[in-house]
Amino acid sequence: MTRLLLLNPNTSVDVTERMLAVARKAAAPDTEIIPFTVAKGVPYIATRAEAVIGGAMVLEALAELSGTFDAAIIAAFGDPGLGGARELMDVPVVGLAEAGMLTACMLGHRFSIVSFATALGPWYRECVAAHGLLDRLASIRLLDGSFRSIGSVPEEKADLLVDLACKAVEEDGADVIVLAGAPLAGLAGTVKTRIPVPVIEGTAAAVRQAELLVGLGAGKARAGSYRRPAPKPSTGLPPALSQLLAGGDVATV
Amino acid sequence: MTRLLLLNPNTSVDVTERMLAVARKAAAPDTEIIPFTVAKGVPYIATRAEAVIGGAMVLEALAELSGTFDAAIIAAFGDPGLGGARELMDVPVVGLAEAGMLTACMLGHRFSIVSFATALGPWYRECVAAHGLLDRLASIRLLDGSFRSIGSVPEEKADLLVDLACKAVEEDGADVIVLAGAPLAGLAGTVKTRIPVPVIEGTAAAVRQAELLVGLGAGKARAGSYRRPAPKPSTGLPPALSQLLAGGDVATV
Amino acid sequence: MTRLLLLNPNTSVDVTERMLAVARKAAAPDTEIIPFTVAKGVPYIATRAEAVIGGAMVLEALAELSGTFDAAIIAAFGDPGLGGARELMDVPVVGLAEAGMLTACMLGHRFSIVSFATALGPWYRECVAAHGLLDRLASIRLLDGSFRSIGSVPEEKADLLVDLACKAVEEDGADVIVLAGAPLAGLAGTVKTRIPVPVIEGTAAAVRQAELLVGLGAGKARAGSYRRPAPKPSTGLPPALSQLLAGGDVATV
Amino acid sequence: MTRLLLLNPNTSVDVTERMLAVARKAAAPDTEIIPFTVAKGVPYIATRAEAVIGGAMVLEALAELSGTFDAAIIAAFGDPGLGGARELMDVPVVGLAEAGMLTACMLGHRFSIVSFATALGPWYRECVAAHGLLDRLASIRLLDGSFRSIGSVPEEKADLLVDLACKAVEEDGADVIVLAGAPLAGLAGTVKTRIPVPVIEGTAAAVRQAELLVGLGAGKARAGSYRRPAPKPSTGLPPALSQLLAGGDVATV
Amino acid sequence: MTRLLLLNPNTSVDVTERMLAVARKAAAPDTEIIPFTVAKGVPYIATRAEAVIGGAMVLEALAELSGTFDAAIIAAFGDPGLGGARELMDVPVVGLAEAGMLTACMLGHRFSIVSFATALGPWYRECVAAHGLLDRLASIRLLDGSFRSIGSVPEEKADLLVDLACKAVEEDGADVIVLAGAPLAGLAGTVKTRIPVPVIEGTAAAVRQAELLVGLGAGKARAGSYRRPAPKPSTGLPPALSQLLAGGDVATV
Amino acid sequence: MTRLLLLNPNTSVDVTERMLAVARKAAAPDTEIIPFTVAKGVPYIATRAEAVIGGAMVLEALAELSGTFDAAIIAAFGDPGLGGARELMDVPVVGLAEAGMLTACMLGHRFSIVSFATALGPWYRECVAAHGLLDRLASIRLLDGSFRSIGSVPEEKADLLVDLACKAVEEDGADVIVLAGAPLAGLAGTVKTRIPVPVIEGTAAAVRQAELLVGLGAGKARAGSYRRPAPKPSTGLPPALSQLLAGGDVATV
Repeated sequence: MTRLLLLNPNTSVDVTERMLAVARKAAAPDTEIIPFTVAKGVPYIATRAEAVIGGAMVLEALAELSGTFDAAIIAAFGDPGLGGARELMDVPVVGLAEAGMLTACMLGHRFSIVSFATALGPWYRECVAAHGLLDRLASIRLLDGSFRSIGSVPEEKADLLVDLACKAVEEDGADVIVLAGAPLAGLAGTVKTRIPVPVIEGTAAAVRQAELLVGLGAGKARAGSYRRPAPKPSTGLPPALSQLLAGGDVATV
Repeated sequence: MTRLLLLNPNTSVDVTERMLAVARKAAAPDTEIIPFTVAKGVPYIATRAEAVIGGAMVLEALAELSGTFDAAIIAAFGDPGLGGARELMDVPVVGLAEAGMLTACMLGHRFSIVSFATALGPWYRECVAAHGLLDRLASIRLLDGSFRSIGSVPEEKADLLVDLACKAVEEDGADVIVLAGAPLAGLAGTVKTRIPVPVIEGTAAAVRQAELLVGLGAGKARAGSYRRPAPKPSTGLPPALSQLLAGGDVATV
Repeated sequence: MTRLLLLNPNTSVDVTERMLAVARKAAAPDTEIIPFTVAKGVPYIATRAEAVIGGAMVLEALAELSGTFDAAIIAAFGDPGLGGARELMDVPVVGLAEAGMLTACMLGHRFSIVSFATALGPWYRECVAAHGLLDRLASIRLLDGSFRSIGSVPEEKADLLVDLACKAVEEDGADVIVLAGAPLAGLAGTVKTRIPVPVIEGTAAAVRQAELLVGLGAGKARAGSYRRPAPKPSTGLPPALSQLLAGGDVATV
Repeated sequence: MTRLLLLNPNTSVDVTERMLAVARKAAAPDTEIIPFTVAKGVPYIATRAEAVIGGAMVLEALAELSGTFDAAIIAAFGDPGLGGARELMDVPVVGLAEAGMLTACMLGHRFSIVSFATALGPWYRECVAAHGLLDRLASIRLLDGSFRSIGSVPEEKADLLVDLACKAVEEDGADVIVLAGAPLAGLAGTVKTRIPVPVIEGTAAAVRQAELLVGLGAGKARAGSYRRPAPKPSTGLPPALSQLLAGGDVATV
Repeated sequence: MTRLLLLNPNTSVDVTERMLAVARKAAAPDTEIIPFTVAKGVPYIATRAEAVIGGAMVLEALAELSGTFDAAIIAAFGDPGLGGARELMDVPVVGLAEAGMLTACMLGHRFSIVSFATALGPWYRECVAAHGLLDRLASIRLLDGSFRSIGSVPEEKADLLVDLACKAVEEDGADVIVLAGAPLAGLAGTVKTRIPVPVIEGTAAAVRQAELLVGLGAGKARAGSYRRPAPKPSTGLPPALSQLLAGGDVATV
Repeated sequence: MTRLLLLNPNTSVDVTERMLAVARKAAAPDTEIIPFTVAKGVPYIATRAEAVIGGAMVLEALAELSGTFDAAIIAAFGDPGLGGARELMDVPVVGLAEAGMLTACMLGHRFSIVSFATALGPWYRECVAAHGLLDRLASIRLLDGSFRSIGSVPEEKADLLVDLACKAVEEDGADVIVLAGAPLAGLAGTVKTRIPVPVIEGTAAAVRQAELLVGLGAGKARAGSYRRPAPKPSTGLPPALSQLLAGGDVATV
């Protein structure tokens, strides 16, 4: 059995629930999805500042839950804390953006990211750049209106998002659409027939990529930049995180 | 049940056999691997010219076998014919290089490609560039000696390849090693404990990524640059390929 | 006397005839143009899949005709098979796209590619990228309507193409226009006064660049990635190509 | 009078003290340096994971101290939390790496980053990339031995760092050396005569750049991606940070 | 006291006067601004050809005035002659474009350059590329109408330039506006409240960056590509420049 | 008859003579080579400062000689003043570096630049970058010793340059060697059999490319960034250059 931690760095439990349903449907029969919603932070990360906070929450949660999962999914599209998580954990960690974009790369040459709020644009763009995938990006297209509730965005915005995706195909040359943002989990299934190119959503892609990485058994780096950092004392951090930082192999710095 | 075509664009049946064993081990229980070795071409593609020939063989074979598989793997590391195959086929097609590199991207930031013959360097480098992944490439490291038989390279060269991989980690900053080249199928499993970072090989990665794409059911593009090309008459091509080219939707050019 | 092979990887003899007229006009007095139209393939390459097929035809034709020319022109704008041809041949080989773009680079900083069918866009763009010239590309502008016959596109579409070229200058910042696509051979001469920047067409540029390379006598690489590949056995290929692959210098892989 | 917050995201008070001395020396007479050392975190940030934690500490501290300074310096070389801080704050915020690198750009074309621990390499490289300055980077050169105490690195390692800097000039083509890492504050002054190109250190550069930004009075963005994020509720965060997140202008998402 | 040479490579004395007023306002109390207008050249550099001429005038003026200043500002936005000036001079030299752009980089991620004449576009774009800052450029926006007098452009065009800047923010994603072109000196102060992101102008930024470089005392390169070139004889050049070229250290070439 | 101006921006008449001999040999029978050596400047341009001076001399000479040639060659490898010259002249202008590099691009994928003095490195590298060809550059390899006379470098340094070129092939992956620097004119012919890849030299390549551009009759841009600049008054410039600047079409700025 494979245990996948579905770690939502947003505090919105309803978003976690929505992703959980999608994740269970995407997962193999012998995969257990372990949902977790951070207790501290914001309901929905949309800016660089909120991503900084969310990244720290990711590390705290991973440290707390360490040992209870075989792979972890950072379930927010900009992948807050991903690099740090990959260093610290002995098991695979994937981000929603990373999994969605890399999967899209196997279905066409250029993808567009479509989501529901303009505020997300700069953070998403920096995320694509950080993954070195700007050459594969056709465009980022975002709705600019407000919405009633983060928990019901897919129902409220489905038609507008479909229009946006179609424009990305026609005007920007997108070969694939990546529906981005944890709140949109599940939307791909209901709208994909209305969009004339393959549609990928982060949650399902991340679940399957995490299973794939577990299945390959590639192992933890013992050298290079993703090896466990050298043990380090710390002050004022949650005990589990402090212990994780303190417990690496003896090495310089 | 998922039927995966393992399409070797090289004429070496023993290399196909080697990959088949790895593929079966990597595949899910309900996946059937359908091996196919092209009848025309060279025993082992190593240069741009040979890749041009192999690419055409890939399209011929896909046309011939069309309808008998749910996804196809182009089982040579430089992914000959991949873009064309993705246009023509209604089912997912993945390349060994593509699958290996994109999987590696989820285990670290930069990967090194390690293989057994210097002749492969330029073709591999152009392949990485074509996938837009040069920013993620730490290095390409290749053995420069000759070898006895293409079918037994892994046994003959294991130690040298391990040394090369370790150098890529130490000197080039590789976070992940991608063992490249169809003849190396299976080697990752036997040497990975001797290499201090995750080791990916194309065959296993491609099998699992193909399963993943089938599982996501992302569908065939009906617009954009990977839609089926408009129907086109042709002359002198094998009947199946000619028919495939002729049978697209009616569209301009 | 210099013998230039004008190798059309499309099966359209009328397109070859059109290019031949332009080529003869562009050529030096002591240059003989040897036209050749492939017997197998499609009337006009417009997609990645068709380019894969055309690339293989290029190698077959070059092998067949080897020894009868001093330089060869791959007379289709996306340069199918160019890298492989350059490896295999002992004489210079240039592509229509390559010659057109590099010549344009000496007349301004950024060029736009203008052609007659939207289907060509992705293939052309990947061709520009493969040549490492994306920084010099202002835009690719393509007509989106259908056309009556591939042999009479220039007459039918001249006005629309001029409009497109002018938009590329005004809106995209093009310093030079490259009229792309073998069927447009000869159009530059008739429309250039109506376009306010220099206009280059592939056929004339390729003829002159091929003459230039012959004139410089730069010679065949005996090392590096364009040296003749090591001899390799093959199966099922046309005799001339098989012999060419078998006849390289003795080297590893 | 200009009040500059010198915010050390490391918990090492002795490093703060060292930077404070350099900062005071670099500052204009009417500048007051306000030192602050975070209470939670690690003594010296060296990895991606530690940078994630430090970034969150930066936002907490800025929120806590908001209103008491005219500009802030994030006093760790990789600039943890910089983008988020720039969004949230109404006054200029600069990072040590950013200030050091941009200043170096005015003294030559390519700079090398020189520091005292190999563990810093990946984080620093990602920092350079995030700032879009990889084209200006000649190399990153790092010492690989251990050190006795983070507070006395400059004294202990001066000679080795000078050697490293000289190698960067001779072998990597560095026009300028950026001495990186908060613990090296003050070293530039003592070693610069032994290095044959200009030597910049982050602390002094950041103090002066912060003064410069205050002096220019460029103001806070009211639009674009660095405007104050829309107000957002939060849970479990320190009161000052929670209040800061809650207090933005009314806007969507 | 710091002596800053404000070297206008344009022959327009009224533009120098305008910049002088801005420079004096931006400068520290103990900074003396030394204005200089070249006697030979064009009233306002707007093209590549004019920049070539202006660059030579910059070197002539710097040689002539050598020893009378502690830092120099090349007071034209495209920084004509900057690299050469930096090689020859023993004191810091900064360009208006360089100072404006690098300062903008500390106030946001992407900047737009806004100026008053379309003719400036290609030169400015090449300048951004030469500084390696294309990744940070959101757009270049230029007015396309004519103007009455180079000396009164700010008064005549203020409203149109504000509109252009606002469009750059809304449509191009600019985080910061750089008002470019010596004739616009002083405009930032009067329009910045009407533009919703920070506004930087080259003159003020250059004055403060020059002071900053003097303050840091980074020194002259004695190695690397900005060391004083080896002494070289010359013919027909102004005596001061000839002497400067002749007076380097004895070295090869 | 085609008249080619061979414009040496260096003051060394013996270098002009050497290039003239090569140019005449490379030229078509009906091409007349018009040699010109600038009267002002340095014997051999090797640094950014010297290139600034040389660029202005190029424009002065072109203005002076305007009307006497059908195309011009800027006969120094870094192409000083090229962009400006291309704007001002109604006939084609090519640079030695540009012609050499673009020609090399048709003989392989990556070229190395080989020359005789380390001082040339930064200028050459910036030249490659300005042409947007860094992706095609394998390396720049330069001799570091001194030489007796600029006029006899080829004889003195042939063996060392051959060694350097061979290293570029073996260690840097060069497919083609570009022998750079006007003083090396003619060397390619004598050493090419000792270098195992094609060898290009700027002078011969530039002569033939200039002939090619004249032959294509592409015409002068009447729009875009290489149209003649709008007429502009000037002060203190040589009469011919002043008149050229004053004589453009009436346009804004």
